[in-house]
Amino acid sequence: MKVLVMHGPNLNLLGKREPDIYGRETLDDINLKIKDLAGELGIEVNFMQSNSEAEMIDRLQADDYDLLIINPAAFTHTSVALRDAISAVGKPSIEVHLSNIHGREEFRRKSITAEVCVGQVSGFGPESYLLALRAAKKLLS
Amino acid sequence: MKVLVMHGPNLNLLGKREPDIYGRETLDDINLKIKDLAGELGIEVNFMQSNSEAEMIDRLQADDYDLLIINPAAFTHTSVALRDAISAVGKPSIEVHLSNIHGREEFRRKSITAEVCVGQVSGFGPESYLLALRAAKKLLS
Amino acid sequence: MKVLVMHGPNLNLLGKREPDIYGRETLDDINLKIKDLAGELGIEVNFMQSNSEAEMIDRLQADDYDLLIINPAAFTHTSVALRDAISAVGKPSIEVHLSNIHGREEFRRKSITAEVCVGQVSGFGPESYLLALRAAKKLLS
Amino acid sequence: MKVLVMHGPNLNLLGKREPDIYGRETLDDINLKIKDLAGELGIEVNFMQSNSEAEMIDRLQADDYDLLIINPAAFTHTSVALRDAISAVGKPSIEVHLSNIHGREEFRRKSITAEVCVGQVSGFGPESYLLALRAAKKLLS
Amino acid sequence: MKVLVMHGPNLNLLGKREPDIYGRETLDDINLKIKDLAGELGIEVNFMQSNSEAEMIDRLQADDYDLLIINPAAFTHTSVALRDAISAVGKPSIEVHLSNIHGREEFRRKSITAEVCVGQVSGFGPESYLLALRAAKKLLS
Amino acid sequence: MKVLVMHGPNLNLLGKREPDIYGRETLDDINLKIKDLAGELGIEVNFMQSNSEAEMIDRLQADDYDLLIINPAAFTHTSVALRDAISAVGKPSIEVHLSNIHGREEFRRKSITAEVCVGQVSGFGPESYLLALRAAKKLLS
Amino acid sequence: MKVLVMHGPNLNLLGKREPDIYGRETLDDINLKIKDLAGELGIEVNFMQSNSEAEMIDRLQADDYDLLIINPAAFTHTSVALRDAISAVGKPSIEVHLSNIHGREEFRRKSITAEVCVGQVSGFGPESYLLALRAAKKLLS
Amino acid sequence: MKVLVMHGPNLNLLGKREPDIYGRETLDDINLKIKDLAGELGIEVNFMQSNSEAEMIDRLQADDYDLLIINPAAFTHTSVALRDAISAVGKPSIEVHLSNIHGREEFRRKSITAEVCVGQVSGFGPESYLLALRAAKKLLS
Amino acid sequence: MKVLVMHGPNLNLLGKREPDIYGRETLDDINLKIKDLAGELGIEVNFMQSNSEAEMIDRLQADDYDLLIINPAAFTHTSVALRDAISAVGKPSIEVHLSNIHGREEFRRKSITAEVCVGQVSGFGPESYLLALRAAKKLLS
Amino acid sequence: MKVLVMHGPNLNLLGKREPDIYGRETLDDINLKIKDLAGELGIEVNFMQSNSEAEMIDRLQADDYDLLIINPAAFTHTSVALRDAISAVGKPSIEVHLSNIHGREEFRRKSITAEVCVGQVSGFGPESYLLALRAAKKLLS
Amino acid sequence: MKVLVMHGPNLNLLGKREPDIYGRETLDDINLKIKDLAGELGIEVNFMQSNSEAEMIDRLQADDYDLLIINPAAFTHTSVALRDAISAVGKPSIEVHLSNIHGREEFRRKSITAEVCVGQVSGFGPESYLLALRAAKKLLS
Amino acid sequence: MKVLVMHGPNLNLLGKREPDIYGRETLDDINLKIKDLAGELGIEVNFMQSNSEAEMIDRLQADDYDLLIINPAAFTHTSVALRDAISAVGKPSIEVHLSNIHGREEFRRKSITAEVCVGQVSGFGPESYLLALRAAKKLLS
Repeated sequence: MKVLVMHGPNLNLLGKREPDIYGRETLDDINLKIKDLAGELGIEVNFMQSNSEAEMIDRLQADDYDLLIINPAAFTHTSVALRDAISAVGKPSIEVHLSNIHGREEFRRKSITAEVCVGQVSGFGPESYLLALRAAKKLLS
Repeated sequence: MKVLVMHGPNLNLLGKREPDIYGRETLDDINLKIKDLAGELGIEVNFMQSNSEAEMIDRLQADDYDLLIINPAAFTHTSVALRDAISAVGKPSIEVHLSNIHGREEFRRKSITAEVCVGQVSGFGPESYLLALRAAKKLLS
Repeated sequence: MKVLVMHGPNLNLLGKREPDIYGRETLDDINLKIKDLAGELGIEVNFMQSNSEAEMIDRLQADDYDLLIINPAAFTHTSVALRDAISAVGKPSIEVHLSNIHGREEFRRKSITAEVCVGQVSGFGPESYLLALRAAKKLLS
Repeated sequence: MKVLVMHGPNLNLLGKREPDIYGRETLDDINLKIKDLAGELGIEVNFMQSNSEAEMIDRLQADDYDLLIINPAAFTHTSVALRDAISAVGKPSIEVHLSNIHGREEFRRKSITAEVCVGQVSGFGPESYLLALRAAKKLLS
Repeated sequence: MKVLVMHGPNLNLLGKREPDIYGRETLDDINLKIKDLAGELGIEVNFMQSNSEAEMIDRLQADDYDLLIINPAAFTHTSVALRDAISAVGKPSIEVHLSNIHGREEFRRKSITAEVCVGQVSGFGPESYLLALRAAKKLLS
Repeated sequence: MKVLVMHGPNLNLLGKREPDIYGRETLDDINLKIKDLAGELGIEVNFMQSNSEAEMIDRLQADDYDLLIINPAAFTHTSVALRDAISAVGKPSIEVHLSNIHGREEFRRKSITAEVCVGQVSGFGPESYLLALRAAKKLLS
Repeated sequence: MKVLVMHGPNLNLLGKREPDIYGRETLDDINLKIKDLAGELGIEVNFMQSNSEAEMIDRLQADDYDLLIINPAAFTHTSVALRDAISAVGKPSIEVHLSNIHGREEFRRKSITAEVCVGQVSGFGPESYLLALRAAKKLLS
Repeated sequence: MKVLVMHGPNLNLLGKREPDIYGRETLDDINLKIKDLAGELGIEVNFMQSNSEAEMIDRLQADDYDLLIINPAAFTHTSVALRDAISAVGKPSIEVHLSNIHGREEFRRKSITAEVCVGQVSGFGPESYLLALRAAKKLLS
Repeated sequence: MKVLVMHGPNLNLLGKREPDIYGRETLDDINLKIKDLAGELGIEVNFMQSNSEAEMIDRLQADDYDLLIINPAAFTHTSVALRDAISAVGKPSIEVHLSNIHGREEFRRKSITAEVCVGQVSGFGPESYLLALRAAKKLLS
Repeated sequence: MKVLVMHGPNLNLLGKREPDIYGRETLDDINLKIKDLAGELGIEVNFMQSNSEAEMIDRLQADDYDLLIINPAAFTHTSVALRDAISAVGKPSIEVHLSNIHGREEFRRKSITAEVCVGQVSGFGPESYLLALRAAKKLLS
Repeated sequence: MKVLVMHGPNLNLLGKREPDIYGRETLDDINLKIKDLAGELGIEVNFMQSNSEAEMIDRLQADDYDLLIINPAAFTHTSVALRDAISAVGKPSIEVHLSNIHGREEFRRKSITAEVCVGQVSGFGPESYLLALRAAKKLLS
Repeated sequence: MKVLVMHGPNLNLLGKREPDIYGRETLDDINLKIKDLAGELGIEVNFMQSNSEAEMIDRLQADDYDLLIINPAAFTHTSVALRDAISAVGKPSIEVHLSNIHGREEFRRKSITAEVCVGQVSGFGPESYLLALRAAKKLLS
């Protein structure tokens, strides 16, 4: 049971910039938490972060995982190519957002990618990933 | 630590109609699962289902809970009154949907209520509630 | 062969206010006419009027009828909950309007509920109900 | 008491193509049914089908009828000229649709012609015409 | 000269929640002020608050008043049924808002109900009701 | 110097229906007036009325005139084909309307055909044609 | 306590044109009424009417008043400059309309200027000004 | 029989700038032509040009004319105040444009002022005024 | 293997008007080219040009062909009736345009008819038809 | 080499109101800075501020300058007349804004006037004018 | 005569995923077919597939080809950068789609890139490329 | 004082293609000019051009500069990711455009990135960069 956790553009800055807003947790800290829970749930996780839509699509196509947990960040609202990749690969996918996209700027309320995912978890900070992982566990069993 | 779980209009029909689509789990079955996990997490849960926007608002105002988990169903897309109630009461609230609202009819993709919630979990069937409960645990601790 | 005839908000005022516009026929008069034709057609009819969306949904879910004739009045244009109830219950349903909704204010031209009904009859005053009843007879036989 | 029944473009194909969807009833079959009911109701009916907006307008202007029953088909959504003809001639008119236009593609939900008709019956297949004929009887008496 | 003062959903929370924003005046305090001024102006006032659209419509239809002062709160922006009730009953009606709806979220700037009222007073806090009462006095004399 | 005066759909009914609104002048009366002024101005005029877009296009293509005066009536708002014909033939053309299209229903305010004409005269009743004829005289000299 | 009462374009015609619609009260009559009530309330009022946006802005900037009562008339819907002036000067301001702008043409329902005012009173004829004056009294004390 | 001819903003530049586009005729030249035709038709004309919306409104209100011919230029698309002035004064008015506004930028295709005029003449250059004058003659006799 | 090649309104003018823009090839020249290639590919072709939507629909319904190549010209953007005819007849159909509709006026970018065709070829002048013919050959074999 | 620097409505209040937001620099201070830099660059500058669209247009037409630097303030978003003046006069023009209009209310993001200017400088406070002056120097040499 | 055939994002998955929908032909199979026809037509072809907008732009700029055949896939609807590259390089370009984009989701019906191409071929599966190649042959000779 | 000058997609083609439109200045020429002025102003500049959104984001995050001058070219209108990067890094940023984006196609008038910049300079060709550099000097001192 292998899960690919994919972090989109600018998420590598987490915890390094604007700690007052986004907290002091870095992406590594979050990945560690995910890894811990994954171990507990008997799931093998692989991580990837990229600022490149192309790299994300290439990785998505690699097909060495059973389920995708993806935080497409800015690409949520603009990337038809990412959406097509998720849809073509055809693995169950879960969309994750740190912040509540329904409470932000108008252009962030529409998700192009969620439409081809099983579901979406948004608004709980790093916890969003952990909830997605539990959902993954459920979907794969 | 008390959580109010509120189910909106027509959710009382779950498992009774169209089992091929919505599965055979009734709302009672789902509530039982929530209760079980709540026990495990040390949370006291109360349940309420109503087809009435007014009853839901009245119940919301009762103020005998620490956090709200709400599946507003159809009211998600139409009820400014429910939104105002959630906002006025000011408890942390989590919006839940059984289906992925981003993959349904255009008018179901916009949530009026999510804007005043902490976050939203959608698309995982009954599991959506359980994930929300875990998020609640995290938020309250 | 049982038909439920449901009248939405403010229809209880028919014939009591503004007789110049809506005529002097009360809702009771209309129900009587429906009852007469129903007898003729061998259909058992039950009536219900409510200003409450919740009561209408509750009644819809009671499931003691074979076909629904509904004049949702103002809820035609605003109630996703009513629509979901009609759809979930899954009985053949016919939408009725006294006035021609295509010739009124812009916001009255769109019906949220008609989309889940078999058909719609609008613009013939009380006769709209009688036509719907004949359509019901046809659909049920 | 003379009623003109006018069928718009492509309705001449009824029953000849796609019988699984539209049934095996041809336009002649439907006209026969209308004629039968008309005889019963003491109404003289004349029929006309055309794929030509111009022919429909010319026929509408002939002014040898007391009431119009019209299924404008595709012209429902595009023909201001047909609308103007109905309005200028000034006879009571009833719009009919075989299918429920409120449950089809977005562009079919708006009727340009219904605005100048007394009312509309849609969604009951051939029965829509018979209901319209009964409404006609009522309107003319 | 009898005036019905109707308060819409969530207004019962006034003064109890978020006193920093809405002040410490409760709805009872406001009603008292209205009563005082009414006495001064020789007007008999009755009060009603409800979170239920249906109860508000029922009360509106009771017809035991000469003029309506209504703060529809959230229903201002969503309730066609309330609008139809005000219009059908046909009493002179005045819409009141505590806050300036023109300076809030986009969806709060449009009033469905004001269209069928004589006028609107918005933005003056509790004073809005008192101004409406003076307008009522003028309209009724 | 030859001018083709083309009248669109339903204009043949002028003066025959609704004389209170459109006056008692028939299209023949108007044509006579046009002919009179044309004689005075030394212009040869030909007339054509049709309810058929196709006939209008065919006539437009005949190319036996120097300038076109056209009242496209309902086609003003819907016919790209007519517009393309005017544009392809390439004669100077003047659009005429009896009523002021800027003061009518929203959908009548937009002219698809005027865009390819030299100018437009609207709102002066039959006089609109006479003004257009004078403009034609000016354009051709 | 000084209040500036500013009347926008065309309001100088009040009572002189179309008395059937707007009544026979002239702007002077209205100003007199305002003056009377102002005296009663211990407020000093100054009046200004202009058809010029520029003069209104210049007067607004003069800064010799404590509160502004303004009926921007047509400028309500078009003047960002007036809005900016009100906002820059920063005095409490009250918008007034004789008619109910929510019940008029679509383009009159949006107020650009109300957004920077404390509140708005509309629909009560000349009484709108008097209500605004009472609100002013309250705001200034 | 007195006609006021009003030219809006920037029309004083006619013939002075960009002669290749607008021709070499100045506004004085055009006014002369209008005067000549007016003499011929037995009409007394007065002229006014202004770059000021306020001056135009003031002049409109002067009420010393029987009919207005107005080229509102840029104000056509923006001035509700001018529209209200034309409507309040209540004289028959004719809108004139040198160019064909239906063939220009999207924002120039909508006329706010034409809605309250009798009719509109556009696209014939200076001739537009002369045609309007003839229409005026007709309207006043 | 029979292909019907249908040319829509105004295409009969090809090569006769504006040769600088559309070239000197007439519709007959184009048909000859199509005929030549058809012979080469072993396809029997029939041609039809009409300015009449009705004639095009009638011809479409004749059902004496295996595949349709259609250049609906202006009807591409306006004719729901043509679309319904193509869809009802149910033959594989190919839409052709001489010019690139994606590079023209906004209203020409949307095709109502392409939605019910197999595919579309646009922008290659007369060659567009030849490419469509080759696609037809492929589809039919 | 003469440059006209034109300041639109309400800019005369700079430095006098809300110093916390707009700083303590008055328009005179800014003009002085501009004058200094102009001297350095060998440019003769003239200044003008007005709250009147008409005065701005009149001044624009005076034609005693080689290049225009204009901060149209609120008129940026509403004045077609100003735009037409800039375009008709035909001098190279530069639009300037103190604040970044792309980061303000939606209605301030669209500039009607920038479309006819050479370029735009926005967001740098008083420095915006100085940058525009340098651009002017470049354009004129 | 050199043609560059460029395949956009996710097209490398062709034939590998969802063979029921997209068939069993891989991109290599398609390229082979293109190569064969190219040989026949005396055209030298080069191929490129990328999931990266940047790589596609870089390749486009290489300028070692006479004509471009491009299937931008998802970038069709989102990439202004690709459009600018095609336009800047200035080679004749042909847009290709396997599926009929006019019959898919609303957001896929608009092509940003087609506007700067000579033409578009869509809906014929792999054959779309071959048709484009024939069009290329024609354009280059 | 270090400034990063970033050029977006296709700007590497400057001066190489379409010299008639964009001039003969290459990006290197422009960079040289920037360098010269930077030297003069005591600013250290670094340059970067990329056709890759990902490379631009990576470079932005490198954090070895005090201020960003960016011409996002096509990404201006589409890249939320670039916007988020600028915003997250939090350096003062200036947006630059060679052409006046307010005078181009509708889709180029909206800037997603300018919203998170200090200001924008557009329309002055290469000079736009030099003006931005002067603004940078001002901002950093």
